[in-house]
Amino acid sequence: MADTAVPRRRLANAIRALSMDAVQQAKSGHPGAPMGMADIAEVLWNDHLKHNPGNPGWFDRDRFVLSNGHGSMLLYSLLHLSGYAVPMDELRRFRQLHSMTPGHPEFGYTPGVETTTGPLGQGLANAVGMALAERTLAAQFNRPGHEIVDHCTWAFVGDGCLMEGISHEVCSLAGTLGLGKLIVFYDANGISIDGEIGPWFAEDTTARFAAYGWQVQEIDGHDPAAISKAIEAARAETAKPSLIQCRTIIGFGSPGKQGTAASHGAPLGEDEVEAARKTLDWPHAPFFIAEEIAAAWDATERGFMAENRWKERLVAYEEEFPELALEFVRRMKGELPGDFAERATGFARQLQGQGANIPSRKASQLCLEEFGGLLPELIGGSADLTGSNLTLWSGSRSIAEATDGNYIYFGVREFGMTAIATGIALHGGFIPYCATFLMFMEYARNAVRMASLMQQRNILVYTHDSIGQGEDGPTHQPIEQLTNLRTTPNLSLWRPCDSVECAVAWHAAIARQDGPTALVFTRQAIPQQHRPDELVESIGRGAYVLLDCEGAPEVIVIATGSEVAVSAAAVRALQTEGIAARLVSMPSVDVFEQQQESWREAVLPGNVRKRVAVEAGATDYWRKFVGLEGEVIGMTGFGESAPGGVLMEHFGFTAERVASVARSLLE
Amino acid sequence: MADTAVPRRRLANAIRALSMDAVQQAKSGHPGAPMGMADIAEVLWNDHLKHNPGNPGWFDRDRFVLSNGHGSMLLYSLLHLSGYAVPMDELRRFRQLHSMTPGHPEFGYTPGVETTTGPLGQGLANAVGMALAERTLAAQFNRPGHEIVDHCTWAFVGDGCLMEGISHEVCSLAGTLGLGKLIVFYDANGISIDGEIGPWFAEDTTARFAAYGWQVQEIDGHDPAAISKAIEAARAETAKPSLIQCRTIIGFGSPGKQGTAASHGAPLGEDEVEAARKTLDWPHAPFFIAEEIAAAWDATERGFMAENRWKERLVAYEEEFPELALEFVRRMKGELPGDFAERATGFARQLQGQGANIPSRKASQLCLEEFGGLLPELIGGSADLTGSNLTLWSGSRSIAEATDGNYIYFGVREFGMTAIATGIALHGGFIPYCATFLMFMEYARNAVRMASLMQQRNILVYTHDSIGQGEDGPTHQPIEQLTNLRTTPNLSLWRPCDSVECAVAWHAAIARQDGPTALVFTRQAIPQQHRPDELVESIGRGAYVLLDCEGAPEVIVIATGSEVAVSAAAVRALQTEGIAARLVSMPSVDVFEQQQESWREAVLPGNVRKRVAVEAGATDYWRKFVGLEGEVIGMTGFGESAPGGVLMEHFGFTAERVASVARSLLE
Repeated sequence: MADTAVPRRRLANAIRALSMDAVQQAKSGHPGAPMGMADIAEVLWNDHLKHNPGNPGWFDRDRFVLSNGHGSMLLYSLLHLSGYAVPMDELRRFRQLHSMTPGHPEFGYTPGVETTTGPLGQGLANAVGMALAERTLAAQFNRPGHEIVDHCTWAFVGDGCLMEGISHEVCSLAGTLGLGKLIVFYDANGISIDGEIGPWFAEDTTARFAAYGWQVQEIDGHDPAAISKAIEAARAETAKPSLIQCRTIIGFGSPGKQGTAASHGAPLGEDEVEAARKTLDWPHAPFFIAEEIAAAWDATERGFMAENRWKERLVAYEEEFPELALEFVRRMKGELPGDFAERATGFARQLQGQGANIPSRKASQLCLEEFGGLLPELIGGSADLTGSNLTLWSGSRSIAEATDGNYIYFGVREFGMTAIATGIALHGGFIPYCATFLMFMEYARNAVRMASLMQQRNILVYTHDSIGQGEDGPTHQPIEQLTNLRTTPNLSLWRPCDSVECAVAWHAAIARQDGPTALVFTRQAIPQQHRPDELVESIGRGAYVLLDCEGAPEVIVIATGSEVAVSAAAVRALQTEGIAARLVSMPSVDVFEQQQESWREAVLPGNVRKRVAVEAGATDYWRKFVGLEGEVIGMTGFGESAPGGVLMEHFGFTAERVASVARSLLE
Repeated sequence: MADTAVPRRRLANAIRALSMDAVQQAKSGHPGAPMGMADIAEVLWNDHLKHNPGNPGWFDRDRFVLSNGHGSMLLYSLLHLSGYAVPMDELRRFRQLHSMTPGHPEFGYTPGVETTTGPLGQGLANAVGMALAERTLAAQFNRPGHEIVDHCTWAFVGDGCLMEGISHEVCSLAGTLGLGKLIVFYDANGISIDGEIGPWFAEDTTARFAAYGWQVQEIDGHDPAAISKAIEAARAETAKPSLIQCRTIIGFGSPGKQGTAASHGAPLGEDEVEAARKTLDWPHAPFFIAEEIAAAWDATERGFMAENRWKERLVAYEEEFPELALEFVRRMKGELPGDFAERATGFARQLQGQGANIPSRKASQLCLEEFGGLLPELIGGSADLTGSNLTLWSGSRSIAEATDGNYIYFGVREFGMTAIATGIALHGGFIPYCATFLMFMEYARNAVRMASLMQQRNILVYTHDSIGQGEDGPTHQPIEQLTNLRTTPNLSLWRPCDSVECAVAWHAAIARQDGPTALVFTRQAIPQQHRPDELVESIGRGAYVLLDCEGAPEVIVIATGSEVAVSAAAVRALQTEGIAARLVSMPSVDVFEQQQESWREAVLPGNVRKRVAVEAGATDYWRKFVGLEGEVIGMTGFGESAPGGVLMEHFGFTAERVASVARSLLE
């Protein structure tokens, strides 16, 4: 509870002052939202939020997400004031290179920032994922009298978040799932960048959320009593998520700019900052917080005690459920079971022995079946393509039916799904996966990038990976999507050529701790490749020589996924003709590029420049391996609607063509 | 009005039979939606739709959009039955290579298909664009007693469309704008691919649409009288768009599969098709339509007469408003004013004379000011970044304030905006443009692709094109986005280096009739490049020698946009040192690649392999020009939050570095 000696409005004004000062100092930023939401934030953080500024990683803390991330100074002010290791000097360095206070909250840059926000609506989606993770983990681990997982997820959202389509996807799903511990504050200030929102956003938002099955409340966002009362009502409603629509004045306290778009995204200006100081009765210098205000905000002791109480609960839990507690600790840490790597390697070897000619999406399901049994932290699902993506396995249990389940029917919501899964990863305790057709990755595109930027272990299962998918036609046939994913920093991608490479890819995705992995699978059956057993472990290096010639190769064919089979046939044909041809299977370009120079040189000798890359996708990307002298067999236009085999032939993905192109290089 | 001699259900069953037969024949497809929506479609097409099967291009026809495009056989059946040039043989070739009946409706493949659908929710967005185009064009051209533009837009949508976020974006906007002639039928069959939707889609959709400001109705989708009544009520409501939520049974008529996901996306099977024939009392052979049914469906005469009545109105209009009529015809044809090319070229020359050092987004606004005055068909706006994208010009008038306006405040809805703009282009009469930050192109990504696939003239204005945007940080700084756009088939992209290149880029985008163009602009000021006047016309070739050396170049620097300036400084420095260096400005890779070999060789001589590409974006793409021997100066990771100039220096986009890398190639 806040120190009652200091009026609440003065506490809130500390946020306002810091925010306008930092934006002014940076000559860049968004004062409007922090000043408008300061009262809400003050009440929430001082009276309701469960957190420990001394340990931002405390597992059972409430999660707080600022989905309207441009209002980052609100969050930085809160972190500084409540006692996180965000010193005042860092607020002075707002938006400067390598400061703790970048323009938008960036996960990993600042203690207490739960997720990177700025791209609107996605923070809200992350919050839904966090709330879902909390509920699921609680159901899996809590025992009567032992509530070791018990925290809320709070999100601040602006008009922009709620105009974005993703807000619909995730809030409709959150309502359906009844995520009772998700509480969202809507900063209904009636202003977006283009001005008063009437001409472009006239919907009745509370009615919309009621239609989603949410509890909805409308309050004055500058009335602390109303805010507190609404929070209590929201907490009391445990079967539905809550929307608290707060009427606020953007830039509250800036006499000349409040209530207008002028306060949204630019410094107020020196004079207006001075005027605001008077209006707010805030006589202090910039970046100065008076002692009594600092004391009233300081949550370190309260936070320390809160975490201690939880630790005591955890000890009691450990005493009563020692094995469960051990597993809980492992899950919190995100560590894999000790024998996982060995078992995963064994599974790849086992598949190598089976020689199945199956679609790689089917091989992926076999991996899920194997690894799912080993990893109770695996949770995931599909955007309404379960039977096509083959993401269900025998141990799958829908979270809609059992709150401790592990399968999520996301509905047709690719963007929401992906950002929710990232939220689950950010929460911790789970390894999420989510699936759609490779083409509809595009609906989720920026969430894929955000997972990469935040280095989150989100496993992206993308099936129907080329024109090979067939009859659905060009709207469903990826061309440029592989390039798009491969050029995304910190995203790993695998496009396996058979079930053995699938198992290695799944293993890599699960083991990767610092970023998402896209697993790209075929719809159609592809033949198992013949390889010596000792080659199985080379797959993990991203690229390896699958078929070699005697002596130095004259020509190298590089292929991925479904094109490895035709390329293998081509290379064998060339060898029969006496041409020294080599086949390199390259399931993961990024993993290959991280290998030591000696491996890369052994696979692709620098002096062999007769190279052909073969992939049923956009061609330009492969120039980095074949240069100007080589050739790329790929797609330069859109696909067509016809059976997959017909299309592969029509667009030239045949052994004859690969061999012919390789021969042409030798002429 | 349909021939009353044939019961309506029998007319609808013609759709059911053709759909299940074609899917069965193709061994692939979606019978469920066509069989479920057949009654609705029958009533709409036989009693309400204004169209002329003999002239699918009749400008004042109603637009019909099947947003749940997987139900393509519904549309193909309707087109065939009502008299479009879609012969029965083409229905037999459903989903076969180069047939008129691809797996999803593809614009340009089939007479009567208004837009390509399949990626869910986007057809609905296109429909919103069509309805908006209709209303705006009507307001611009209709005169009292002369309603030459007066048609409705009808859309069929499924659960999937309404789960997708884009449905929220465009329906919230359509409600705000009060698009009274948009009527949407929601196929509420309670089934999506994963099964009964309860566990993932439990919202109250009619309440949601009421919250958007729509008229909503709920009916039995198998009751023709109710359907007709609802349509009449929807037409009577002219101030709001209408949602008619139709309770239907998916796969209606298939005794063993109706009402289940089994009928959604796979052939029913020979036996079940036979059983359905019995249930539907449809004793005919596959692909056979009895004469009386064919006659009842045939809309050719009715359509011919309807178009004739419109032609008469047009003649009367021409008599009373000859100039306006001339302009209307030009707008319908999508032709530019006769003097446009000359004036646009003149404008580029004029800018060349001015030498302004301004951000290219500002130069873009100058182009809008110039070209907007010449082109009343230009309509567009921004996703709530008007002041940042600089898309407003002095002649802009908001369509929310004046229905005959030309500026759309889209709100924070990038995906919806882009698909709406494509819908406007598809409708005709306008050249749409839409704007956001280059990064948030990703929210709209699949709509960009769909515009490319459909070859629509949608001008995509993307500002804040690199780390040069500065303080907003990595969430707002494009890296891989340029590659993503450039590898999209049939998308043209320009990244101009100064205001002169901007004018050429805008001219190219406006003149391009067969696809979208992305115009990529800086936030920050960039200096005007010095070039001889005669070089201005070379810009239109996509790449040209901006700075040349004497004799053959030893090294070529290729740069785009904001990196041209530092590259020019580097090339000058190299030349001072006696190195024969050339600078190629390449604002449009795709346009350059379409040039004759002689031009390409003149700009980039094949024998000069010492090449450096410079662009503040992902590097791999440029290997196609620099090969394995050259170098790329670009971004290999995410950006940071700091002032733009600081970042450009930090990440090495300086003349010194460019010169140094070029020198290293010569060592």
